[in-house]
Amino acid sequence: MAAFTFRELTPTDFLRRAAEVYGDQMAVVDGDLRIGYRDLHERALALTGVLADLGIEPGDRVAVLCVNSHVMLEMHNAVPMRGAVLVPLNIRLSVDEMVHVVEHSGASLLVVTPELLEQAELVALRTGVHLLESGPGSAYESGVRSADPQPVPCTDERSLLGINYTSGTTGRPKGVMIHHRGAYLQSLSLLVHLGMDSRSRYLWTVPMFHCNGWCLTWALSGIGAVHVALRAIDPDHIWQLIREEGITHLSAAPTVLTMIAESDGAKGPPPEPRVAVTTGGSPPSPSLLVRMDSLGFDVTHLYGLTETFGPIAINEWQRQWDELDDQAKSQLRARQGVGNVIAEPLRVVDEAGADVPRDGETIGEIVARGNDVMLGYYRDDEATAQVDLEGWFRTGDLAVHAPDGYVEIRDRAKDIIITGGENVASVEIERAIDSHPAVVESAVVGMPDDKWGEVPVAFVTVRNGAVLTADEVVAHVRTTLAGFKVPRRVVFSELPKTSTGKIQKQVLRATEVPAR
Amino acid sequence: MAAFTFRELTPTDFLRRAAEVYGDQMAVVDGDLRIGYRDLHERALALTGVLADLGIEPGDRVAVLCVNSHVMLEMHNAVPMRGAVLVPLNIRLSVDEMVHVVEHSGASLLVVTPELLEQAELVALRTGVHLLESGPGSAYESGVRSADPQPVPCTDERSLLGINYTSGTTGRPKGVMIHHRGAYLQSLSLLVHLGMDSRSRYLWTVPMFHCNGWCLTWALSGIGAVHVALRAIDPDHIWQLIREEGITHLSAAPTVLTMIAESDGAKGPPPEPRVAVTTGGSPPSPSLLVRMDSLGFDVTHLYGLTETFGPIAINEWQRQWDELDDQAKSQLRARQGVGNVIAEPLRVVDEAGADVPRDGETIGEIVARGNDVMLGYYRDDEATAQVDLEGWFRTGDLAVHAPDGYVEIRDRAKDIIITGGENVASVEIERAIDSHPAVVESAVVGMPDDKWGEVPVAFVTVRNGAVLTADEVVAHVRTTLAGFKVPRRVVFSELPKTSTGKIQKQVLRATEVPAR
Repeated sequence: MAAFTFRELTPTDFLRRAAEVYGDQMAVVDGDLRIGYRDLHERALALTGVLADLGIEPGDRVAVLCVNSHVMLEMHNAVPMRGAVLVPLNIRLSVDEMVHVVEHSGASLLVVTPELLEQAELVALRTGVHLLESGPGSAYESGVRSADPQPVPCTDERSLLGINYTSGTTGRPKGVMIHHRGAYLQSLSLLVHLGMDSRSRYLWTVPMFHCNGWCLTWALSGIGAVHVALRAIDPDHIWQLIREEGITHLSAAPTVLTMIAESDGAKGPPPEPRVAVTTGGSPPSPSLLVRMDSLGFDVTHLYGLTETFGPIAINEWQRQWDELDDQAKSQLRARQGVGNVIAEPLRVVDEAGADVPRDGETIGEIVARGNDVMLGYYRDDEATAQVDLEGWFRTGDLAVHAPDGYVEIRDRAKDIIITGGENVASVEIERAIDSHPAVVESAVVGMPDDKWGEVPVAFVTVRNGAVLTADEVVAHVRTTLAGFKVPRRVVFSELPKTSTGKIQKQVLRATEVPAR
Repeated sequence: MAAFTFRELTPTDFLRRAAEVYGDQMAVVDGDLRIGYRDLHERALALTGVLADLGIEPGDRVAVLCVNSHVMLEMHNAVPMRGAVLVPLNIRLSVDEMVHVVEHSGASLLVVTPELLEQAELVALRTGVHLLESGPGSAYESGVRSADPQPVPCTDERSLLGINYTSGTTGRPKGVMIHHRGAYLQSLSLLVHLGMDSRSRYLWTVPMFHCNGWCLTWALSGIGAVHVALRAIDPDHIWQLIREEGITHLSAAPTVLTMIAESDGAKGPPPEPRVAVTTGGSPPSPSLLVRMDSLGFDVTHLYGLTETFGPIAINEWQRQWDELDDQAKSQLRARQGVGNVIAEPLRVVDEAGADVPRDGETIGEIVARGNDVMLGYYRDDEATAQVDLEGWFRTGDLAVHAPDGYVEIRDRAKDIIITGGENVASVEIERAIDSHPAVVESAVVGMPDDKWGEVPVAFVTVRNGAVLTADEVVAHVRTTLAGFKVPRRVVFSELPKTSTGKIQKQVLRATEVPAR
């Protein structure tokens, strides 16, 4: 073959292209700060020199403890452009957990935004990691102004690009190793499915530290869209940015969508044009989908894990659904869907690894493989082997496969409730509760019971000003579900959540709930 | 790394996905024939068995002589799914030329649509290639009904997928070797740039044998769009399909756009919604762009070659152009543009291989490299070496690089006119002529001249019913261009074209034109 064919796939090429094609256009809106694409690329290039001057060589790990910001976008480019490995820290981790991630990854540098300096200093004290603080007047900014670029070209697209530690609802977080090729292809996939272009303005409600913001940290540059950073989740501020910055797209976990829908901002006129929303992390309830639709948001449900570069599946709209009523549409849209355009087809398999029938009833585990699946867990071959089912990655998500090929999660493996010998999906009970007009959201867990083994217990958040009793919840569920699925106890409270909006069911399970 | 990561990239995966995701949706409209995606995939699978039964093994070449049709789409999938190599024949070649391509490629099978059976039989007679005729009641159809699938998985994405013989305006056609990886990535790139989805309906005005229809033969399946086949170019039929089939997208060379604009169909109401058009093959004149716009078409200009899997560059719209007037917009849109989202940046270089300044004036040659550049010419290392400029592919297109990074072709290297020591781009003169309201299109070539070496000679097609004299053409050009660029002779005639709508300048050069 001739020398002019084949280049390694690396997602930082998208910023390089943006500097060429959209150099004069806005790249980042971060508070009062505005950065164009040419400047963003030059800053990332200069930062390769800053990294080199701090001793970062190809293969070295660089940890980042940053809110959604231009710094995070710059690090997503500068670190791989230096040939180094990006290790984003979940900003809600305890200092103990951060210390673990820094030590486990062997990071020698920690880049931090000012909001998180206090934690970073504690981590540095305990690990000896070098700190690089960003912000006005910082060493980071003076480095950007003075450093000579020292990029190192990617010579193997299958090499390590980053380590994303799972938020880990239980136990020590595991380090998901992602590669250049997967991040590149996943970026293209998201561009295809989200239908964005250089006029798009994306609001960063999803944390960039979480699966690299579903690879959109790189993808948006590919078509010159504007990154609108959001340094902290505040629903009123989200509404303000949607209206003032002309947001066209955003992504958010269902719990964040619930916050947006419940906020005072929702009382204003709907955004015009409508906002395209991608949601994932947990299944959006049909009632939430209907509500978001009425507020001016077109919601698409995606499904994925840190191990799959974010969304590996998408709930693709089918032309024939156009004819259905809102409720039926929302039921179909709440499913996790089908593999995205670069993914292998998802499978749902039984314990023996055989595909379950596509009957929409038989529960199995979702398994995946392909270019958007991780290399494995960093320095943890045992954990990697545990999720490898004959060459397929075990997601741990229990689902049914519908006759139309769409996958629908019934529960995380550990969230299934076994009561009186029956397997009950907590999601099913939650949906029934959420369909009550007075309910904001709910979570159902199994609790030990002498007679039944486990019984379902519901934690319910009630809409502001509404009044709801446990008996009413029970009666409401009983109208649609079998008796053994009806919650035996109902607790009214706010729900504990992770930084990415996932409900922490292990916290709920540890709650003392007196029998009725 | 774990076994669940990395799969070879091959564009037939898009049809596999379409069968999963859009199984019930329409895939192909081909006259009265309608094929859904599940059926199209099953037909392609069965055809791997038909190929195997005819002795086709992985690596074997399969030639296809087909109009735009379901057969061509099936062959684009079945041949690579069998591990074999697709060799599409330009249907306008002479039998001699077809014989050359079949012999040079070493194809052992020739698949043909009924329209082309006569030529195919002559080719078979002379080469001994086995013929497989398609159409109702054919061996092809009975094979589809009875054969057992015999696919062979792609084990090397960098391997040979097809050989596309260049239409070759002069000399023997060369066999451009394309690979699975490039076709896959180029497909994603087109999906990103064209913004298509499962509601899109694409009219096949571009020949599928030409650069595999710019890879859209594969790409459209990726998002479940509908292929509307067009077996022969007929502007009235195009208008009919646009209106009856609700066409949303089409691609066509500027000359075909001119035919569409000049057709009676254009007198009806504009299509609603507007049709997204991608054009390439030669630069669209600004006047054509303005005209198409008024007829209800949004035209995007792409640029590429058979050697670059079709469009390697795109004229990306810039937000700041919104403010300009129509004429200024069209001037900017007539440029070839910038590398597409998966391409390396295009370079424009001088004879020594150094980049020319980005001044919009200095002419150099466009060179390219990357995943969407061919492997080389089949069985022709010498030709491959000739286009390899230190690892960059020489396109043979002469262009300037504008300060904003956009490339604008001034001419094919061989189309430059050298008159009185001055280099004159024929395109520049053609644009000046085309801006006359009575002109449909024009072509300018250099002809030998005792005094000046060469002089520009113009061939002009006049709008139906309009009257135009040579003196008026000359006077019109003189209002905008320097004297030495004014055509010395003007011939009024239709223009000879290749099957892809390129004007055959070598035919014009061979025309006897008396001095004025």
